[in-house]
Amino acid sequence: MTNFQYALELLGTFFFAISGALAIQDHHDDLFGASFMGFVTAIGGGTLRDIMLGSYPLVWIGDIYFVYAIFAGVLVAYFFYRYLVGLKRTFLFFDTLGISFFTILGVEKALRLGVHPEVAAIMGMFSAIMGGVIRDVLTNETPVLFRKEIYATACLAGAILYLILFRIGVDRNINLIVSIVLIFIFRLLAVKYKLALPNFRKGG
Amino acid sequence: MTNFQYALELLGTFFFAISGALAIQDHHDDLFGASFMGFVTAIGGGTLRDIMLGSYPLVWIGDIYFVYAIFAGVLVAYFFYRYLVGLKRTFLFFDTLGISFFTILGVEKALRLGVHPEVAAIMGMFSAIMGGVIRDVLTNETPVLFRKEIYATACLAGAILYLILFRIGVDRNINLIVSIVLIFIFRLLAVKYKLALPNFRKGG
Amino acid sequence: MTNFQYALELLGTFFFAISGALAIQDHHDDLFGASFMGFVTAIGGGTLRDIMLGSYPLVWIGDIYFVYAIFAGVLVAYFFYRYLVGLKRTFLFFDTLGISFFTILGVEKALRLGVHPEVAAIMGMFSAIMGGVIRDVLTNETPVLFRKEIYATACLAGAILYLILFRIGVDRNINLIVSIVLIFIFRLLAVKYKLALPNFRKGG
Repeated sequence: MTNFQYALELLGTFFFAISGALAIQDHHDDLFGASFMGFVTAIGGGTLRDIMLGSYPLVWIGDIYFVYAIFAGVLVAYFFYRYLVGLKRTFLFFDTLGISFFTILGVEKALRLGVHPEVAAIMGMFSAIMGGVIRDVLTNETPVLFRKEIYATACLAGAILYLILFRIGVDRNINLIVSIVLIFIFRLLAVKYKLALPNFRKGG
Repeated sequence: MTNFQYALELLGTFFFAISGALAIQDHHDDLFGASFMGFVTAIGGGTLRDIMLGSYPLVWIGDIYFVYAIFAGVLVAYFFYRYLVGLKRTFLFFDTLGISFFTILGVEKALRLGVHPEVAAIMGMFSAIMGGVIRDVLTNETPVLFRKEIYATACLAGAILYLILFRIGVDRNINLIVSIVLIFIFRLLAVKYKLALPNFRKGG
Repeated sequence: MTNFQYALELLGTFFFAISGALAIQDHHDDLFGASFMGFVTAIGGGTLRDIMLGSYPLVWIGDIYFVYAIFAGVLVAYFFYRYLVGLKRTFLFFDTLGISFFTILGVEKALRLGVHPEVAAIMGMFSAIMGGVIRDVLTNETPVLFRKEIYATACLAGAILYLILFRIGVDRNINLIVSIVLIFIFRLLAVKYKLALPNFRKGG
């Protein structure tokens, strides 16, 4: 992993921890609840990815700086709570940053471990969305990935773009940035224009 | 693993993907939602089993045909949705096929990896039911295994039958078929006659 | 692991199985449901810890006596159900015993595997609470760790005490007992006096 990727992964972890801590609800509104939510949101996806790939030690167990990045995120959420929540789109912003970074870093890691590109795309998406899914399941919310607006699909699209650019030999760091930006913009446009996939039940 | 077992495992995966995609509800009724549900239902149990046993790579990561089998199942569910759902018992049929196959293949795999027969029976049951349990948890349904009719108990009974026949030296392929058929019939009878276990709370 | 620790771990498993079986609700009140709940509560936390640490085989897969301890716990819950449930605080008692034992044994194990003390504390807490969290998620309850009274925080406090006493060279068995007792008392006092952490949302 290059220093650039390492910095992106720490940043993504930090963003996810903020979004997790901001997601607390009335019934678990205390310091522990918010820290736990930030922690689970930040590590959930990458942990599931690494366990599925059998890649040990897990990122945050092997490198204590990820644990520090999480607690930094929770502290930022704590001290700036009234400002961050006041900005209506803050949660969306940090969550979208998180999924954009984690999708592409997840694809990268899966490829490095030698899996099929199809599986790498799925692993990238899992890295991005599963932290939030676990967070929502723990608090009995309907997981964000099942809401109508395009969410995980944006991650998949970015993962596929990355794989195509990778195949045709684009420089790795450029590819990283382009694919991350695609997911970020796709997701924000999806929310703004309420883009949704066609229904499944109508059938073929 | 023999070719016969391999074919059964691919088939079971295909059946589970159909049952998962058919299980979509109003609030996540789109192509992504159905694919995700089919995927999770099909891989959940085997993935949990393999992670618990430390058996890597996971089946669907090491062999891309399992991913193809899942998408084939989702496509079948999509193109034949109106017919499949019209037949009231379609979901039950595919789900029961799935649990029957996966229980016995899970027991087989656990035995091959050298675990105790008691643990192998539990692993077989987990392989069969956990995909559906994860699917239900993700969508906030009460997991199917807690509904009153006999479900996981049928898997356990089949697993135990397999272990007994294995101990007394019955041919492996015959044992596979007999035990799978037992689970299939036991489960369908349980639904038809609403068989249930006695209550726990009455105590001894 | 010393014989003493082994005995504590078997006992903790037994206590957790009792608390899990006692937690059944109307909609899954049968022998299978109670056994499944006892099983998941007893193995959930340790299984997640060992999977995250990549420590194989899992405790209950490598040593069949843990499976027997679970079924002993379920049987005790079954035969003494009316007495155990009659004593209003029985569930709390067995659950608190379980989390006290598992926190400290989890910290021990993580340290032995060479992880950072900060991560060891988190792993100890996970060992203790995640069985109950998985149990609650499966039955659509709000997980116990999000209720207002101090719960996981008591585990964390005990884990940190253990790490401090460990650093200053206190005898291992004495450290084990002191830290377990601290968690037990802290949790019971928290319930009795409804101790809670300050709200998060008020911010800094």
